[in-house]
Amino acid sequence: MAQYGARLIVPIDLKKQPWEQKLPLHNRWHPDIPAVAEVTTGELFRVEMVDFSGGRITKEYTAEDIKYAEPYIAHYLSGPIRVLDKNGVPAKPGDLLVVEICNLGPLPGDEWGFTATFDRENGGGFLTDHFPCATKAIWYFEGIYAYSPHIPGVRFPGLTHPGVIGTAPSMELLNIWNKRERELEETGLQSLKLCEVLHSRPLANLPSTKGCQLGKIQKYSPEWERIASEAARTIPGRENGGNCDIKNLSRGSKVYLPVFVEGANLSTGDMHFSQGDGEIAFCGAIEMSGFLELKCEIIRDGMKEYLTPMGPTLLHVNPIFEIGPVEPRFSEWLVFEGISVDESGRQHYLDATVAYKRAILNAIDYLSKFGYSKEQIYLLLSCCPCEGRISGIVDSPNACATLAIPTAIFDQDIRPKPQLVPTGPRLVRHPDVLKCTYDGNLPTTKNPCATA
Amino acid sequence: MAQYGARLIVPIDLKKQPWEQKLPLHNRWHPDIPAVAEVTTGELFRVEMVDFSGGRITKEYTAEDIKYAEPYIAHYLSGPIRVLDKNGVPAKPGDLLVVEICNLGPLPGDEWGFTATFDRENGGGFLTDHFPCATKAIWYFEGIYAYSPHIPGVRFPGLTHPGVIGTAPSMELLNIWNKRERELEETGLQSLKLCEVLHSRPLANLPSTKGCQLGKIQKYSPEWERIASEAARTIPGRENGGNCDIKNLSRGSKVYLPVFVEGANLSTGDMHFSQGDGEIAFCGAIEMSGFLELKCEIIRDGMKEYLTPMGPTLLHVNPIFEIGPVEPRFSEWLVFEGISVDESGRQHYLDATVAYKRAILNAIDYLSKFGYSKEQIYLLLSCCPCEGRISGIVDSPNACATLAIPTAIFDQDIRPKPQLVPTGPRLVRHPDVLKCTYDGNLPTTKNPCATA
Amino acid sequence: MAQYGARLIVPIDLKKQPWEQKLPLHNRWHPDIPAVAEVTTGELFRVEMVDFSGGRITKEYTAEDIKYAEPYIAHYLSGPIRVLDKNGVPAKPGDLLVVEICNLGPLPGDEWGFTATFDRENGGGFLTDHFPCATKAIWYFEGIYAYSPHIPGVRFPGLTHPGVIGTAPSMELLNIWNKRERELEETGLQSLKLCEVLHSRPLANLPSTKGCQLGKIQKYSPEWERIASEAARTIPGRENGGNCDIKNLSRGSKVYLPVFVEGANLSTGDMHFSQGDGEIAFCGAIEMSGFLELKCEIIRDGMKEYLTPMGPTLLHVNPIFEIGPVEPRFSEWLVFEGISVDESGRQHYLDATVAYKRAILNAIDYLSKFGYSKEQIYLLLSCCPCEGRISGIVDSPNACATLAIPTAIFDQDIRPKPQLVPTGPRLVRHPDVLKCTYDGNLPTTKNPCATA
Amino acid sequence: MAQYGARLIVPIDLKKQPWEQKLPLHNRWHPDIPAVAEVTTGELFRVEMVDFSGGRITKEYTAEDIKYAEPYIAHYLSGPIRVLDKNGVPAKPGDLLVVEICNLGPLPGDEWGFTATFDRENGGGFLTDHFPCATKAIWYFEGIYAYSPHIPGVRFPGLTHPGVIGTAPSMELLNIWNKRERELEETGLQSLKLCEVLHSRPLANLPSTKGCQLGKIQKYSPEWERIASEAARTIPGRENGGNCDIKNLSRGSKVYLPVFVEGANLSTGDMHFSQGDGEIAFCGAIEMSGFLELKCEIIRDGMKEYLTPMGPTLLHVNPIFEIGPVEPRFSEWLVFEGISVDESGRQHYLDATVAYKRAILNAIDYLSKFGYSKEQIYLLLSCCPCEGRISGIVDSPNACATLAIPTAIFDQDIRPKPQLVPTGPRLVRHPDVLKCTYDGNLPTTKNPCATA
Repeated sequence: MAQYGARLIVPIDLKKQPWEQKLPLHNRWHPDIPAVAEVTTGELFRVEMVDFSGGRITKEYTAEDIKYAEPYIAHYLSGPIRVLDKNGVPAKPGDLLVVEICNLGPLPGDEWGFTATFDRENGGGFLTDHFPCATKAIWYFEGIYAYSPHIPGVRFPGLTHPGVIGTAPSMELLNIWNKRERELEETGLQSLKLCEVLHSRPLANLPSTKGCQLGKIQKYSPEWERIASEAARTIPGRENGGNCDIKNLSRGSKVYLPVFVEGANLSTGDMHFSQGDGEIAFCGAIEMSGFLELKCEIIRDGMKEYLTPMGPTLLHVNPIFEIGPVEPRFSEWLVFEGISVDESGRQHYLDATVAYKRAILNAIDYLSKFGYSKEQIYLLLSCCPCEGRISGIVDSPNACATLAIPTAIFDQDIRPKPQLVPTGPRLVRHPDVLKCTYDGNLPTTKNPCATA
Repeated sequence: MAQYGARLIVPIDLKKQPWEQKLPLHNRWHPDIPAVAEVTTGELFRVEMVDFSGGRITKEYTAEDIKYAEPYIAHYLSGPIRVLDKNGVPAKPGDLLVVEICNLGPLPGDEWGFTATFDRENGGGFLTDHFPCATKAIWYFEGIYAYSPHIPGVRFPGLTHPGVIGTAPSMELLNIWNKRERELEETGLQSLKLCEVLHSRPLANLPSTKGCQLGKIQKYSPEWERIASEAARTIPGRENGGNCDIKNLSRGSKVYLPVFVEGANLSTGDMHFSQGDGEIAFCGAIEMSGFLELKCEIIRDGMKEYLTPMGPTLLHVNPIFEIGPVEPRFSEWLVFEGISVDESGRQHYLDATVAYKRAILNAIDYLSKFGYSKEQIYLLLSCCPCEGRISGIVDSPNACATLAIPTAIFDQDIRPKPQLVPTGPRLVRHPDVLKCTYDGNLPTTKNPCATA
Repeated sequence: MAQYGARLIVPIDLKKQPWEQKLPLHNRWHPDIPAVAEVTTGELFRVEMVDFSGGRITKEYTAEDIKYAEPYIAHYLSGPIRVLDKNGVPAKPGDLLVVEICNLGPLPGDEWGFTATFDRENGGGFLTDHFPCATKAIWYFEGIYAYSPHIPGVRFPGLTHPGVIGTAPSMELLNIWNKRERELEETGLQSLKLCEVLHSRPLANLPSTKGCQLGKIQKYSPEWERIASEAARTIPGRENGGNCDIKNLSRGSKVYLPVFVEGANLSTGDMHFSQGDGEIAFCGAIEMSGFLELKCEIIRDGMKEYLTPMGPTLLHVNPIFEIGPVEPRFSEWLVFEGISVDESGRQHYLDATVAYKRAILNAIDYLSKFGYSKEQIYLLLSCCPCEGRISGIVDSPNACATLAIPTAIFDQDIRPKPQLVPTGPRLVRHPDVLKCTYDGNLPTTKNPCATA
Repeated sequence: MAQYGARLIVPIDLKKQPWEQKLPLHNRWHPDIPAVAEVTTGELFRVEMVDFSGGRITKEYTAEDIKYAEPYIAHYLSGPIRVLDKNGVPAKPGDLLVVEICNLGPLPGDEWGFTATFDRENGGGFLTDHFPCATKAIWYFEGIYAYSPHIPGVRFPGLTHPGVIGTAPSMELLNIWNKRERELEETGLQSLKLCEVLHSRPLANLPSTKGCQLGKIQKYSPEWERIASEAARTIPGRENGGNCDIKNLSRGSKVYLPVFVEGANLSTGDMHFSQGDGEIAFCGAIEMSGFLELKCEIIRDGMKEYLTPMGPTLLHVNPIFEIGPVEPRFSEWLVFEGISVDESGRQHYLDATVAYKRAILNAIDYLSKFGYSKEQIYLLLSCCPCEGRISGIVDSPNACATLAIPTAIFDQDIRPKPQLVPTGPRLVRHPDVLKCTYDGNLPTTKNPCATA
């Protein structure tokens, strides 16, 4: 008789803080954060995780918590996990770590999540110039389905995935990150015009000791001080994977991660019950605590064999992955287009980001006709299983991006019809998202043609 | 007994030039190009079309034709078609024109197509700084499948669609287009940094009388001179639809187009047997002649009801569409990621275009390990049914884009495996794409870490 | 430059009778029916075909033609086609013939079809004891879609396929067929109780010279007399493939047929625009004329290698096939169950046929609540893309069969709802199927609990 | 803040026997088995269950347990559950009970299952005349995937579902069942010829006090004696749902069950990790313990509204259901056909059961060429996600059934190829299924043409 079932290697006690866990969590990338657990290739193991905020964003019906959230805490990760082969030899730099996601889900007893936008002064979201206020919606899970009292009339199956999964960077790679992101922070506003269009701040998230958790490393010890001052923030995805927020990295998928340090030091966190392509609200999936059941293999020397160094060093690579077989199936999609002309009518050059922003704005306006506030749709498109595509990227000067929305998630027919949209009081849905005021003084982007 | 079958309203004789057709074609957008045919809502009609180049790119095994192609000819369109309701009342500005694509395909006897990149001096493609040469591959169709002697070892079903479908702009809209694109052309290099990364030229395609065809309007007549000097080029997709190159606009889909002029004046062309998201090679789908069987409805006043004006005027809208039910099904996908760090290692700010470029470069390098030249994969990813996604667009500073490739199109298993990739002479596939030299002197982008 | 496009090897002129075609058709299986065309492995060729009835069932709005149809004419087949390899060596008995269906569709100008039930005296259908009358519905095609004025409120994409595709039997195989079917005809009513439940007649369709067409063989010649008297009817599918009516044998699929005679002698016909699993109405798909584009390969000695002789001789085999990649996608299905208890309440033993009959009767009753006549639903379930499954076949004494219906084909929501079904005159749909009286005197099966 | 998560209403302790559970299980259908729990419409509740055998079939590597299994114990069910509406009014006879399966899976710590065939003397399986021995394979679960050391080289995602879900019958319905099944048992061998073909015994499973468990009813009490002597066995699916073994009744699906007694008295059990259509091995899914998360609604008077009485009384109905959105996706299928000619070459009349048996025999022979024993394939086809279709049911005398197998579950390419199947010792897979001898003396069915 064989072994079966997953070995629990990182347990979470939801009544404790991230740093009080039996295996304390970390929220930075650094080669010197010590591994908290060890696994062998081929074995099935279970990793539990808190939500990205470590419980700071609560299930209370208020958006105050998101308005005043401390962005420097993101994301609390479980791990690092050291990976050995069957002979006890650890993964080595240059290897490829194959991680199969055999299963995942919410933690038992914690079957709820939230979708939110930060206040514009506090990180905002993709459309923060239009929607500067902090907002939040709570979602409850009924098995595979989620529904929200704050966005009534929709219910959809989750394409659950970890927002963050990655290996530890080497010191060399970490230095590359810090250098290039610092340059952006320092010169970006002058040299990169996209910032003017996107309006979200900051441009980068540089190392900061504030709120830094480094797992087993004693806080405020000299080692902590050193590491905290140079460890990378977990906000962006990078060469090691990390916060890629790829919604299709779900049950049955496999990710091929580069190994930069001995043992690979795999970390993961930021579980999402569901997310739309782009995760536009920023805190924008259905954020939750959860568990992963994983299985690792090592492809020795696989980095050179399978990954593409694209840049100044051999470390400039990206992970690859395979999609799993049990994604929700939808057959009917309503699709919105956007081109790279911004809201002021200004022409941009093949800019897929501008085009995608436009497609989303189009969808929000459209769907809000069916009895929703625009904030409801903004949050919904951020977390429902919609698909964002780069449809055309060569037809100068317009990039064309598309946003495809599965019509079956709505309890009404949202397709255009000759009989026009019903109007009047029967359409008003009184419950709205939870919302705070915006107390800053940055100007919002107005759509000159907006109704209301 | 009812009528059935499609009424042929725009016939094509492939032995004739675009301007010699019974209903002469046009290659510009302008409200004053006269309609060549009239249809009634509810009736099924057939529109035939030449390939985008009107036969200039041939099935000969040479890339000379693409190298010296005149870019000002694109795209030869069939139409305009005037749409009336069942009472004979034409579509009116402010209406929404619903066009259902009931069927489409190649023209009988012309079951072949081509995928190509222009020379860098002549329009290039999305990766023209890496691949400055003109290249071409010929594809032959076996019913639903295409294969190419120039890219052996792949065969895939087509997700056939018209690259261009749109309504005529009003004069007001045309003026908006010309103004914003002229501004880009004049100031873009100074103000838009993306141009430096993409390297393709020109920034915009402004009105030009050269090669201009205006359907029934007599060439060089005073009217022709006037219209040609202000008519918009068909290269970019815009508010009227046009060259959106959305690969999912296939059999059974419906597109909702805004109406800007009386009768709607629907035009279509640029049939693609298959295309990948982005159409990266520029001349990058499997380009072909073909036919559409269409059915129109009019939603009166539907623009206001269903489309979102987003910009300075009520004309700043985009079409929406519904995806049809018979797309090819694939269940296994290999996915490449890219982040917004360019090939020099420079950090860009949430730039989905840069991230997508990186994902594609990653995929090209990876797949070329399996016995292909990089040019073969470049053309393949441009025309096979791969999906380009904007996966993360909020995690500053990195946008994360993904490119998903269906593994079933290859005759070998292209997934990473412990046994590493086979190497050696048995992998060399001698046939390559058709290719010209690049005689210009712009520098190419080098990947410092590239093998070979 | 390569060859491309399909070579037309069997043309059809719809204005001519089956026996007047340039390559005259046949409606029997026999090794001595001479091949009318020859193809080489690897080449793409086109075969055109009449509808199964050779035009006897017309597009007129009457069911008289189906009531008085002569069942001995079915099915007019195109072929036989002799298959050679690239060296000119024909397929040989014991080989496996791989036929890829690269494309198919209606004949241009003939985009309509019909679904019908025969009169009970004339072949009937699966439910002939409930519905003894001849009925007919005409369908019109709008590209991939079909709709019928006789079954309003439904429209669906076709999963088009040839009802009949097979190789010629050897004399030995033909003798096996004739022997076993004669035995059934002679002793079946005594020994096989299923006949009492199904009520359709005749039990088998034995060789008959009446209406027999043998291609190039001169009618009433001595050779014709000999062959006609022993040639097998085409009604049932058998070891050679034939009338298997497998609805998934559509675009992009591959069928592996056993070869029994030199050259394989492939014949095909009975094109269906769409069919439900089981083709319950008998004349029950959307029957049409059409074309196939095929490509053949030969696997030498493949019968022994890949097919399973299961029975007294090595000839007792069945074809296998692979499903193609472009089937219509549906994501929502309403499913009806049936168990092997018949309408009188009698228990049958693990009888999937009885269970399937029950599932269909359940579905008919259910769907007729939504404003349809039962005959409309009977024809609809026979031709729409519904799936019939053998769900449980071991739980004595009840087999459990299921019928899954894609809900998207209806223009109303047909799922059970708390608000019950709308009733009253607004539901009455006046158009019904075309229908004749039943003038026979066999008793119908009554459902004692039927409403109305 | 709302309630969330499922309320556990039927807990299972796997260390205890079925009758020792806190809420004791039952293995018969009877209106007088008292409800053990109560739920309200709209609430999410969790029901745990043992495997069908209540632990009698073990994870030990032996088939002795299955050989000597006592068939009278099947199936241990959880419940009955009484359903009330939000006003506390119970479901009533004539209502429709809507049960949504929001989630399901194995019990934590018990992630394994088994597939088995009974000995021919002990119930057998669909092919017991070919395979009379008791056999067993153990499966281990890795999240969504299952693999077996006894059937190496396959791994597939589960389409998990409860084999049994149903409402309690009324006394009137129970009497109908007992009467018709007794008639079959008594006269079947004489009157139903299918028995001779299927060879499995017994014909029906009549009430028996042996091994009977009735939940809270004290064993051997007078009430127990009465109920046990008339309660229906759970082997076959019937009007109340029950053991329908419909593999698509998985996550996100909804079943509409008729209500025959006050409170509906819902019972469920027999969880399957995965099953093929037909569950041919009888004990033939991947049998396991597990949990369901359910949500109920009541459609008042819905039986009359939505279900079809088809038979002598209004109780002769069958459930209907909707398929959920997260089934595993496969795009490539190899399909085997069978016609209604049995292994002796005898012709049957439109018998789908015989045709399906033939299709399965064909598939077993074919797949066993790839290094498997026939018993391995028999068990595999019983439990992997293969689809069994009734493709043609009107083409006298041959029914045509098909069995479609997703090719991606194998670690080798199982499609026919010109290079023929590899042979020789490298194909021999030494591990086989666990197997006992058959000690009876019924003759097996021989395939005269079988290899080996």
